Amino acid sequence: MMRTTVGIVGGGPAGLLLARLLRRSGIDCVVLESRDRAYVEQRQRAGILEQGAADILRECGAGERMDREGLVHDGIELRFARRSHRIDFPSLTGGRRVMVYAQTEVVKDLIRLHLEDGTPLLFEATATAITGIDADRPVIHFVHEGREKTLTCEYVVGCDGFHGITREAIRGAITTYEHVYPYSWLGILADVPPSCDELIYAHSERGFALHSMRGRTVSRLYLQVPNGSGVDEWPDDRIWDELDARFAIDGDWKLERGPITSKAVLPMRSFVTEPMRHRRVFLAGDAAHIVPPTGAKGLNLALGDVAVLARAFIYLHTTGSSELLDAYSDTRLRRVWRAEHFSYFMTTTLHLGPEQTPFQTRLQLAQLERIVTSRAAAAELAENYTGLPLY
Amino acid sequence: MMRTTVGIVGGGPAGLLLARLLRRSGIDCVVLESRDRAYVEQRQRAGILEQGAADILRECGAGERMDREGLVHDGIELRFARRSHRIDFPSLTGGRRVMVYAQTEVVKDLIRLHLEDGTPLLFEATATAITGIDADRPVIHFVHEGREKTLTCEYVVGCDGFHGITREAIRGAITTYEHVYPYSWLGILADVPPSCDELIYAHSERGFALHSMRGRTVSRLYLQVPNGSGVDEWPDDRIWDELDARFAIDGDWKLERGPITSKAVLPMRSFVTEPMRHRRVFLAGDAAHIVPPTGAKGLNLALGDVAVLARAFIYLHTTGSSELLDAYSDTRLRRVWRAEHFSYFMTTTLHLGPEQTPFQTRLQLAQLERIVTSRAAAAELAENYTGLPLY
Repeated sequence: MMRTTVGIVGGGPAGLLLARLLRRSGIDCVVLESRDRAYVEQRQRAGILEQGAADILRECGAGERMDREGLVHDGIELRFARRSHRIDFPSLTGGRRVMVYAQTEVVKDLIRLHLEDGTPLLFEATATAITGIDADRPVIHFVHEGREKTLTCEYVVGCDGFHGITREAIRGAITTYEHVYPYSWLGILADVPPSCDELIYAHSERGFALHSMRGRTVSRLYLQVPNGSGVDEWPDDRIWDELDARFAIDGDWKLERGPITSKAVLPMRSFVTEPMRHRRVFLAGDAAHIVPPTGAKGLNLALGDVAVLARAFIYLHTTGSSELLDAYSDTRLRRVWRAEHFSYFMTTTLHLGPEQTPFQTRLQLAQLERIVTSRAAAAELAENYTGLPLY
Repeated sequence: MMRTTVGIVGGGPAGLLLARLLRRSGIDCVVLESRDRAYVEQRQRAGILEQGAADILRECGAGERMDREGLVHDGIELRFARRSHRIDFPSLTGGRRVMVYAQTEVVKDLIRLHLEDGTPLLFEATATAITGIDADRPVIHFVHEGREKTLTCEYVVGCDGFHGITREAIRGAITTYEHVYPYSWLGILADVPPSCDELIYAHSERGFALHSMRGRTVSRLYLQVPNGSGVDEWPDDRIWDELDARFAIDGDWKLERGPITSKAVLPMRSFVTEPMRHRRVFLAGDAAHIVPPTGAKGLNLALGDVAVLARAFIYLHTTGSSELLDAYSDTRLRRVWRAEHFSYFMTTTLHLGPEQTPFQTRLQLAQLERIVTSRAAAAELAENYTGLPLY
């Protein structure tokens, strides 16, 4: 039987950052991750860090490689009606930027630091249940090295994602809100340098496309596809041809092609849990909320959750007051709903719904035209994209 | 057989203002209005003039009574989640405001000026057909004083509203875009001073409500109601009780009640015609486009249309160049789609759809919360509400 102050279920970016922030303030914690290290370090997820998220990583000593290898982006491109427009972040937000640095790299950096520091970080430790939620000491039951074990905690934080057990364990105490979008993304990685220095969000008659990158030599590209699409329907040539068609503008532009090393279809969903806490059990990251990827808010929300939660635990540890811990759910839900709205806005402005009318397409174009011609509308996008203050 | 330079079908605010602007530049025109004067001067329509629209009326000498009796508004109130928030227009837009002055009053002022000036303004003159559209001299056929007559024109401008004959006459040359909203407005006039100096746009769990006014002694109030509702379902007490419930806030507020003098159910529709011209026939105002009333753009779009069109006719008259006339449709459609989007945004942010999910209601509240806490989001609303430049 193990004991700790904060038991963290899930060793993704949220769980790892939370452990990092707690340990640096002398708060005892244990991280239980069901997968092995190689899997966690390889799974492809998000790649855009808000300025505030990058700052949090720097402040806890996890920003060194990010600052060396990450790409600072000062804007994005919006494409529609065969024209390209740039949204410049610093001039619209008083100097804010984003960092292109893949989630997998954040995870690798944090794992390396934890192993150096001796953080109790258990891989292939599968949490199976949480008991004692209504008592003072919740217990995480998990299987590790073939044996059933328990971790007795003062607090449990579920950073175990949308399918994790923690939310399930407090199901009766929470309300959920959900929206499923009528399209998915086909995402690819290709061994070819990005065709543009910045991200390109493209609205086209054929549907949405996104140009992104993983560093200087790997392109990350996405196509809107119908729900239920399989990667088998998308041989490489068809993907490149479709990307060409959706990114086409009147003027010079060429999408560079290269070997496709990964293909996956990603569903798009919005999901919010209210509240994000029940008694001594807290939820953070995808365990508490999901956003569609348009707008790149998912990873940033997760890091924001644990930054606020860590501060609350540290406040409790140093002052004995649970005031910030008690405010955690409300504090984060304001920011979560802001991000849900922004992600919904970006998604529904750029994608073509299967039953969309020509009137609705014209409205999308009117909205996009406004963003690229009005400082107020552009600032509203830029402020949300680069990230709002945590408090 | 009559002849003129510009034949104007419809004597609502668009047709009357166009005639005013043309006559002041020495351009011959005739206005044909199917209703009698009393009807035109009484029909209840919009009541908010953008700063630019008020300026146009002033510049053509039709602003005197407006400036005496109209109410200048520096902002609106947004109510949601039982709280009230003010959006201050001048500080967000560099000094722009709106004028509360009913469309019927604008119409009365313009009719009086036309009768003084001897403008050929024919009431009870029912246009029945337009012929010769593909020739150089289109002809408006109309019935007046029991006789069939014709008006031969160099140009025809249809200011004859959504159900007018002009758009119908060029039907084969235009594309239309349409959206019908799943709710209507029940609008009332009540003989009671407004309960608040400014308009109140209220989002509530029971649906949208709007507090407005017609001058200092008459309240104009609206309730979202299901499509197909009849005024019979809404006895006075039920209206006041429902308004009370939707405007309720935590804190002091009382809606003053008074005798209801008018009740009507208004459907909500978006509609756009592209292009707004075919050969020598032009469309302006509701003949070309409809917006839902949330955001008060309909009258302002109509006045903007004819301001741009008058300028183009005057340019042709003085220089011989049809350049501005040829640009009319594109110039206005940019502004029309902007207004369509803004009206859609205001409508769908504030109303509850019959099949709306709790997730979507939360998104509305997140959007409203953003507007009242972010300068960029508030400025985007204020700029659109007070009106964008004509060019």
